[in-house]
Amino acid sequence: MTTKPPIGRDTRLCMSLSARPGNFGSRFHNRLYELTGLDYVYKSFSTTDLAGAVGGIRALNIRGCAISMPFKEAVIPMLDGLAGSAAAIDSVNTIVNDDRRLTGYNTDYAAVVELIARIDPATPFVLRGSGGMAKAVAAALRDSGFTDGTIVARNVAAGQGLAALYGFDWTAEPEAGAPLLINVTPIGMTGGNADQSPFPEAMIAEAEIAFDVVQYPPETRFLKTAKALGKRIITGTEVATIQALEQFVLYTGVRPTPEQVREAAAYAYSLG
Amino acid sequence: MTTKPPIGRDTRLCMSLSARPGNFGSRFHNRLYELTGLDYVYKSFSTTDLAGAVGGIRALNIRGCAISMPFKEAVIPMLDGLAGSAAAIDSVNTIVNDDRRLTGYNTDYAAVVELIARIDPATPFVLRGSGGMAKAVAAALRDSGFTDGTIVARNVAAGQGLAALYGFDWTAEPEAGAPLLINVTPIGMTGGNADQSPFPEAMIAEAEIAFDVVQYPPETRFLKTAKALGKRIITGTEVATIQALEQFVLYTGVRPTPEQVREAAAYAYSLG
Repeated sequence: MTTKPPIGRDTRLCMSLSARPGNFGSRFHNRLYELTGLDYVYKSFSTTDLAGAVGGIRALNIRGCAISMPFKEAVIPMLDGLAGSAAAIDSVNTIVNDDRRLTGYNTDYAAVVELIARIDPATPFVLRGSGGMAKAVAAALRDSGFTDGTIVARNVAAGQGLAALYGFDWTAEPEAGAPLLINVTPIGMTGGNADQSPFPEAMIAEAEIAFDVVQYPPETRFLKTAKALGKRIITGTEVATIQALEQFVLYTGVRPTPEQVREAAAYAYSLG
Repeated sequence: MTTKPPIGRDTRLCMSLSARPGNFGSRFHNRLYELTGLDYVYKSFSTTDLAGAVGGIRALNIRGCAISMPFKEAVIPMLDGLAGSAAAIDSVNTIVNDDRRLTGYNTDYAAVVELIARIDPATPFVLRGSGGMAKAVAAALRDSGFTDGTIVARNVAAGQGLAALYGFDWTAEPEAGAPLLINVTPIGMTGGNADQSPFPEAMIAEAEIAFDVVQYPPETRFLKTAKALGKRIITGTEVATIQALEQFVLYTGVRPTPEQVREAAAYAYSLG
């Protein structure tokens, strides 16, 4: 392990902006800075003044910023450009600052593309959800060659809109299952309805792959049920870790080893 | 020693803004956070957009900010109020952010007041310099009861203005010495004219106390000469340490022990 220098004038700050910041980003990135010896520090922020915060990123030459709810679309007009990942879904979860030129990326989209690369795109899917992250997942599915899919959303306008955007079907309630079940709603999340599942057990039993984007708990009821039934699972912690890793690479230009990524993710999750 | 938690959503950021940031602040404050177990992190920044940077301090709710050259006066209209220390000299070296209400302080002034409290105010002095820091020192002398003083400055307008402001005399070159000699110019500073002294050796020989605000090197030629002649000295490192300590207290509400302050200062200076 190289030795990270103490924080000083040459240290680059990376940060996150969200209405309700968590601790995962700070811990994952700061641990990776220690493991790689890079002279960076990471800190999460909340704000009620997005324009002022983005102005501060420019004025202080903050290297990078993760963007979470509810700022992922509102931030777009404040940037100088969008990378393909963000332009594809009109949603930014990452800002990279190159000497005060701000470019928006979407590493959630990139992470989902990477995770579903292991799945045959001929696999039919049912995706539950219609928010910003659902858009990222649906776009990733479409762009990865998936064509046979149904969007499940009680919000008719949002659900039909999302389905139409990427050429999928829409339904208000999941009637029929599919080999690939994907949850992109908060159902099963810690603090809310952690005991609920976005799909009925019978539907999970008939599926092959269960994919949940919920990050906490690391194993939702949906994934627990699927695992108990011997299904392949893709977890929200995988999405969160890969998208954070891609931010790290964008900010630093350095790709950590898989072992370093595993250690940083384990550290971040061990602290909760 | 209590254990400082890892950086996360509750960690408060403190920072500095200057055209050419040093490392002293980052190292002194971060070491004190470790020694006191406080959940803070400190990072220096430079900027070419002061208004954007101050907007960022508000929008990100950054707890405190040290202000250095050339922003000490320009920042005043961007703040919500001035504490007495800053109002006394129309110069801010510290911003404290109380839930987005920004108050300007001047801890240089406060540090000098503290350091000269050990000197009889009847002592005549000669002060060389006429910039912002000279103003802070002259104000501290006046407010501490010193009345018999001469400002030495080649810049006629600045020198006469400063002398008139606080009721002292002015001269372009130091002709006669005084028991208290004070240097508030860059003469003797590392990187410039480190081999020069603001006062001739004969004048130092006739003085009792030599006070140099230059921070690097910790012992200037002026102070070395005075020390060799058995004079009492007050150093720029004392000013820098006390002013940084007062910032720490303003930001955190916690006053570290003298031992903690000594350790943090020694750490900061050992790294250069």
